[in-house]
Amino acid sequence: MHTAAAIADFRSYPLVHALTAATPLADRVHVTWADGRLSPFHLQWLRDNCPCQQCVYNVTREQVLEIVDVPEDLAPDEVRIDDQGRLCVAWQDGHQSQFDPGWLRAHAYDNASRAERLAGKPQRQLWKRDLQLPVFEYQALIEDTDALLQWLLAIRDIGLTQVRGVPTEPGSLKQIAQRISFIRESNFGVLFNVQSKADADSNAYTAFNLPLHSDLPTRELQPGLQFLHCLVNDAEGGESIFVDGFAIAQALRQEDPEAFDALCQIPVEFRNKDRHSDYRCLAPIIALDALGQVSEIRMANFLRGPFDTSVEQMPRLYRAYRRFIALTREPRFRLMQRLEPGQLWCFDNRRTLHARNAFDPTTGARHFQGCYVDRDELLSRILVLQR
Amino acid sequence: MHTAAAIADFRSYPLVHALTAATPLADRVHVTWADGRLSPFHLQWLRDNCPCQQCVYNVTREQVLEIVDVPEDLAPDEVRIDDQGRLCVAWQDGHQSQFDPGWLRAHAYDNASRAERLAGKPQRQLWKRDLQLPVFEYQALIEDTDALLQWLLAIRDIGLTQVRGVPTEPGSLKQIAQRISFIRESNFGVLFNVQSKADADSNAYTAFNLPLHSDLPTRELQPGLQFLHCLVNDAEGGESIFVDGFAIAQALRQEDPEAFDALCQIPVEFRNKDRHSDYRCLAPIIALDALGQVSEIRMANFLRGPFDTSVEQMPRLYRAYRRFIALTREPRFRLMQRLEPGQLWCFDNRRTLHARNAFDPTTGARHFQGCYVDRDELLSRILVLQR
Repeated sequence: MHTAAAIADFRSYPLVHALTAATPLADRVHVTWADGRLSPFHLQWLRDNCPCQQCVYNVTREQVLEIVDVPEDLAPDEVRIDDQGRLCVAWQDGHQSQFDPGWLRAHAYDNASRAERLAGKPQRQLWKRDLQLPVFEYQALIEDTDALLQWLLAIRDIGLTQVRGVPTEPGSLKQIAQRISFIRESNFGVLFNVQSKADADSNAYTAFNLPLHSDLPTRELQPGLQFLHCLVNDAEGGESIFVDGFAIAQALRQEDPEAFDALCQIPVEFRNKDRHSDYRCLAPIIALDALGQVSEIRMANFLRGPFDTSVEQMPRLYRAYRRFIALTREPRFRLMQRLEPGQLWCFDNRRTLHARNAFDPTTGARHFQGCYVDRDELLSRILVLQR
Repeated sequence: MHTAAAIADFRSYPLVHALTAATPLADRVHVTWADGRLSPFHLQWLRDNCPCQQCVYNVTREQVLEIVDVPEDLAPDEVRIDDQGRLCVAWQDGHQSQFDPGWLRAHAYDNASRAERLAGKPQRQLWKRDLQLPVFEYQALIEDTDALLQWLLAIRDIGLTQVRGVPTEPGSLKQIAQRISFIRESNFGVLFNVQSKADADSNAYTAFNLPLHSDLPTRELQPGLQFLHCLVNDAEGGESIFVDGFAIAQALRQEDPEAFDALCQIPVEFRNKDRHSDYRCLAPIIALDALGQVSEIRMANFLRGPFDTSVEQMPRLYRAYRRFIALTREPRFRLMQRLEPGQLWCFDNRRTLHARNAFDPTTGARHFQGCYVDRDELLSRILVLQR
């Protein structure tokens, strides 16, 4: 028979601290643990999370119960800890719920448990020009899921990686991207070819230098990961440059908080436009998460529309924008490297800004292929590999 | 020769009001128009938006200039209106900028001009059970771009449409979806088959009733448009139900503002999990835009993880969640219709919640196909069709 925890999720929740007591109160149960922690669980929460096969379909492990179908004042007849250490609730309407203590502890929402979960979240590592570039071998990533996991964790936490030993046939980028998941398509294709073209539909497809930017800031959700795979690189110039946008945002926040606030508050429109498409997205350059941490940088000067803010705010926005760009140009932040055939960059497009020096197409061919994979796919893949 | 406006964009900006005067001040130019409006333009803004072929690459119409390369105190030697009605600025460093008056007026950022643009934005139409369902004919959408545009505007502004006369061969949904753009893939495929399956990886692939929900609330960006195409529907039951999530949010805001605030403020985790994937997204059920308007509903009871908020907030969240679900069940909001073979639903997945009554697979076959297209693609297609 499945345990309650197995039914509710595909993860396992080992027993860390045993349940020692369970005391029913008016609207909650107070549970105490072997380490002395006290966790309140509201009756609504317990009933809602009942893992039995009536409440959760055991094939999909998705909930069938809707809590609104249970009276708001449903109370237990009995609350006890059984001989397997589970919390057992016998409800007044006859329903029975049993909670695995490992699962229950992992989902406790007392302050200490919540703080513990928050502290256990992955920590990003900010970097500057002296980053020890995380480099991985193609063959290992294809064959070995441990190597794959290490690569994915580096993408998640550092946001810039290089892979070497990649075949140089066009399209071979797909194999490595699909080790994570499917590729996110855009109007530029599933794979895009970065080459200088006479009929370019973006400055990316010229030989111009491209200033530090994120790709597709013109979409509501910027692509999570960007791959750039070098097939041929015989032209002079064209070096890749990267900065950690989160490190720059942090520097701006410390050195010029007024400019930082302006870039968090004032939305800017970005545009991709050609004969067949017209993408526009209005959003601030720096996005913060619910805890006030920088969660995303959105920036591409060549895709920016005219600033549209009040007359009073306009000088503030220009000052902040200039300050941000000036920071991205400071050598302390910039990692520069020329990509050789068989190498690829994989980086967090919403964090790590990338640039390209101008190249001279008369000195030789240059052909990169690129593609995108979304952050949802990266995080899902990591969770599955960590099971 | 291209006009300034043609170089800067693919849109056209007809002359509505002529420029009548331009007065340089310390950090800006005051421009007056034939209708008496006064628009300040900061010098930085004017230099930044210079549309000349040195500043904007005329093939891609993307900016090459970076404003940070121009001194912050750059001033004009001369500002005048030329005999073609353009604003001409001769900068101290010798650079010359000319602004088309149609373009300039369309981008003016005085309060009146900004209010005018805001008022000109598309207005959504909220609906309840008595919606006059917008119905479109497949063949017209394939052949006629005017019909196509009308359909896309209905999806954008009403959020629920039906298409009839669709071929019932599996895969034919692709043709109509690709009239908008490429399809957004997910772990469920490019097209997903909605059928009752023994090894279901979601309750959607059972014969259960599905309560009102959005698809993929487990992803950072929920799919913008959802298509559901009926190939076979011989089973009893399985009627489609829709509610306008924005109308429900508005009702909640009016009838129970405390519950509304809780659903805007307290993030909830949604999860899609199977043997191969583990998607999690933490976000509030109701999202507001920068103006405080409801911009998105994220809801699927069967994909929701255990609530994780403070002990103090937990009863508030349960009360609000119950209230919201109760509203979605009120007949005043619910449109119910059985889909017949050759018909499809196309709706705004981030606004219009959908449900399915249970069906009885022993009474006959039922086979729907579905897919997603993102909102960026819808809006781009509309803008191109409107050029």
